[in-house]
Amino acid sequence: MSHEPRVLLGPGPSNIHPRVFQAMISPILGYLDPVFLAAMDETMVRLRYLFQTENEFSVTLPGSGMAAMEAAVCNVVEPGDKVIVGIHGFFGQRMAHIVERHGGTAIRVEVEFGEVVTPDQIRAALNAHPDVKMVGVVHGETSAGIGQPLEEIGKLVREREKLFLVDTVCSLGGADIPVDRFLIDICYSGGQKCIGGPAGISCITLNDRAWKVLEGRKAPPDTWYLDLALIRKYWFSDRVYHHTAPGPMVFALKEALTLIQEEGLQARISRHEKVGSLLHRGLTDLGLELFGNPDHRLSMLTCVMIPDGVEDAPVRGRLLEEYGIEIVGGFGPLKGKAWRIGLMGYSASERNVHYLLAALREIIQA
Amino acid sequence: MSHEPRVLLGPGPSNIHPRVFQAMISPILGYLDPVFLAAMDETMVRLRYLFQTENEFSVTLPGSGMAAMEAAVCNVVEPGDKVIVGIHGFFGQRMAHIVERHGGTAIRVEVEFGEVVTPDQIRAALNAHPDVKMVGVVHGETSAGIGQPLEEIGKLVREREKLFLVDTVCSLGGADIPVDRFLIDICYSGGQKCIGGPAGISCITLNDRAWKVLEGRKAPPDTWYLDLALIRKYWFSDRVYHHTAPGPMVFALKEALTLIQEEGLQARISRHEKVGSLLHRGLTDLGLELFGNPDHRLSMLTCVMIPDGVEDAPVRGRLLEEYGIEIVGGFGPLKGKAWRIGLMGYSASERNVHYLLAALREIIQA
Repeated sequence: MSHEPRVLLGPGPSNIHPRVFQAMISPILGYLDPVFLAAMDETMVRLRYLFQTENEFSVTLPGSGMAAMEAAVCNVVEPGDKVIVGIHGFFGQRMAHIVERHGGTAIRVEVEFGEVVTPDQIRAALNAHPDVKMVGVVHGETSAGIGQPLEEIGKLVREREKLFLVDTVCSLGGADIPVDRFLIDICYSGGQKCIGGPAGISCITLNDRAWKVLEGRKAPPDTWYLDLALIRKYWFSDRVYHHTAPGPMVFALKEALTLIQEEGLQARISRHEKVGSLLHRGLTDLGLELFGNPDHRLSMLTCVMIPDGVEDAPVRGRLLEEYGIEIVGGFGPLKGKAWRIGLMGYSASERNVHYLLAALREIIQA
Repeated sequence: MSHEPRVLLGPGPSNIHPRVFQAMISPILGYLDPVFLAAMDETMVRLRYLFQTENEFSVTLPGSGMAAMEAAVCNVVEPGDKVIVGIHGFFGQRMAHIVERHGGTAIRVEVEFGEVVTPDQIRAALNAHPDVKMVGVVHGETSAGIGQPLEEIGKLVREREKLFLVDTVCSLGGADIPVDRFLIDICYSGGQKCIGGPAGISCITLNDRAWKVLEGRKAPPDTWYLDLALIRKYWFSDRVYHHTAPGPMVFALKEALTLIQEEGLQARISRHEKVGSLLHRGLTDLGLELFGNPDHRLSMLTCVMIPDGVEDAPVRGRLLEEYGIEIVGGFGPLKGKAWRIGLMGYSASERNVHYLLAALREIIQA
């Protein structure tokens, strides 16, 4: 072993279950091997459970959560298309930027850091821009530790017959995001956060409404690697070669999804909520102040203000070196002013909360 | 273990060394952990050895070899740019297609399947299109089992002050491709072939001439995930977050690269040539006919004609089910008419050649 294990309490990657590691080193198979194709099919079944969807197209993508964000955007957006992007942090900004990279126009609906976008704001944007193609939001903003409510926005978007795109990279597997019931048309997540898999693989689901839009494009998307129509041909009956599937990552993610089913999605969500509350109480008891609107704080990613007189980097350095614990610094307006603490997937345990709180107490109160 | 190991003698993925598996399950680290950053730096050093280059920018990419192809093309090509693509098989066609996806014009210089593009053909294309930005070729065509000579074309392209792009997905680590000496400006490869790593990660190197072109773009590339300028900011001193690095894949590839250095690149190339020759002789002794121009056959990917009276799929099915050996079928004009046999990385052993030949003899001569 080349290095010591860490207790990973940042925004991902998180620690992963030994069974996920074990699956990762399954014997390598060809990308058309019948055994591998069966593993892909099983992965899809488990992804439908995780996304709470009936969508046939629920697959992994051969890249990180950011590849999934780009795939979700660029397969829909054609030059000149307008997309409303609800922004409550860094990743919403990035989604808007990616819309623009692909020749679209991003209508930014921004709120202050620590708040959430309201249905009224989305309604106003839809009224002002009735010709938009899609409305996109980030559910769990890892930059702010805030979760965006989805259900009301989903209804609004469906009424106007637009597509509803939701980023759940931070939260899927740790928060209740029923894709079909919330009227989400395109949803994606990353492997390495609450899902408990490795970094480098992501997952996405699209319903028929979304596919109809993709099939109505004037031209194919301007990226080839993330062209979902080509990826679909590999995952389904045609099995047409597109890229060489990242076998070890697929096996690892499949095992992570199996663990989710064994635990039960609702029980897993409760676990994340429970350890999140435990952390929030513990930090408050230490005299620290949590960031952002208390009604919308995430359980899997907590943004906490650094107390006066305490320096950011030295504390994180001591946590890493003396305790083996990784937490990360604040983002954007919170840089140097807050810490971000993740409790995701296999890392989301009471033991980790107690250990972190004890370490923080020793360092801060020393 | 969910399934039996295979002897992987297709066009990749290939079998991987136990040490590569072991590295893959190294404890997970954050993407800014000092230990992980040091591993990235070490990976770059080893990639420079593999590419035989002094290029500082020699990094992994968080996607398959096809992601690397797209990155190489789309970071250079702006709408309206012309690229000469030398095509001697499927992957050259794909490169031309990707040029077009990004708004460029592909000048196709095509030769018959089984042949190679000549310097005269490239010279003629350069004369006819003096305004091209780049010339791209595929070195090892996995679709045809043919290797494209590079050195003369490299000189021509440099004389005209264009960029020279070479795809070495199939061959790097098993063929002698000195990037600097061959005047290659952009070169990429995949993890899972002769390099002996996992699928799902790739590598790329760019020299200063290439960076100058990238830095002179009118607008950023139309993809965000594969934007090399952003990826560079993460790999070098700024360490700006772009995507969450695929830790297990990076550790695995680094170990594969370490194994290459331990074996010695030239010794490794000799091994590939030796087992390739052994296979070629063995197949000929079995009465089979090798495909393509004998002067340019690859050692790591052999295309062999299926003898009269022998059916394609049943033979491959028996190899897989009874012997646990994967080889694959022919591509394009060779579909149903040829087999493709890979001897790459850890799979490139005399033992595997003898086993495959024995199995083929039993099946065909029965």
